[in-house]
Amino acid sequence: MKKISVEVRLKEEVLDPQGDAVGRALAQEGFGSVSRVRVGKLIELEIEESELSSDALESTLQAMCEKLLVNPVIEDYSFKIQG
Amino acid sequence: MKKISVEVRLKEEVLDPQGDAVGRALAQEGFGSVSRVRVGKLIELEIEESELSSDALESTLQAMCEKLLVNPVIEDYSFKIQG
Repeated sequence: MKKISVEVRLKEEVLDPQGDAVGRALAQEGFGSVSRVRVGKLIELEIEESELSSDALESTLQAMCEKLLVNPVIEDYSFKIQG
Repeated sequence: MKKISVEVRLKEEVLDPQGDAVGRALAQEGFGSVSRVRVGKLIELEIEESELSSDALESTLQAMCEKLLVNPVIEDYSFKIQG
């Protein structure tokens, strides 16, 4: 069993109204030192142990991200493979 | 300027219908080896440099999470402070 965590972030140049709303709410709660907030996704997968080499696993993960998990027009992603 | 990333996850015992839907969609796309998917949030903050000690920064971040960013009934969180 491998655990994978995929971090999905809006691209730098894409507006993030959710992040802006969180930033304003933080300011109202007295956390005025927060200058920028971006909200992304953290997708955690468990993959059954198989004979996939680590290269093959990486390309499988890349395919998953590009086909389904990520909108490559507005989002960037990175993943970490654990144990 | 400090960059903080806050990872928010549903607690283990909480159902994750969004994660289940992603898991089914992955299986339909031919990624049948994925056995579990959980979808969480990745909140990235920039905090203006100040005289906050690192202890004070940690407790400020904890307060932000508990007051606003996280629903402690169903979610767990962790944060990392970068540079």
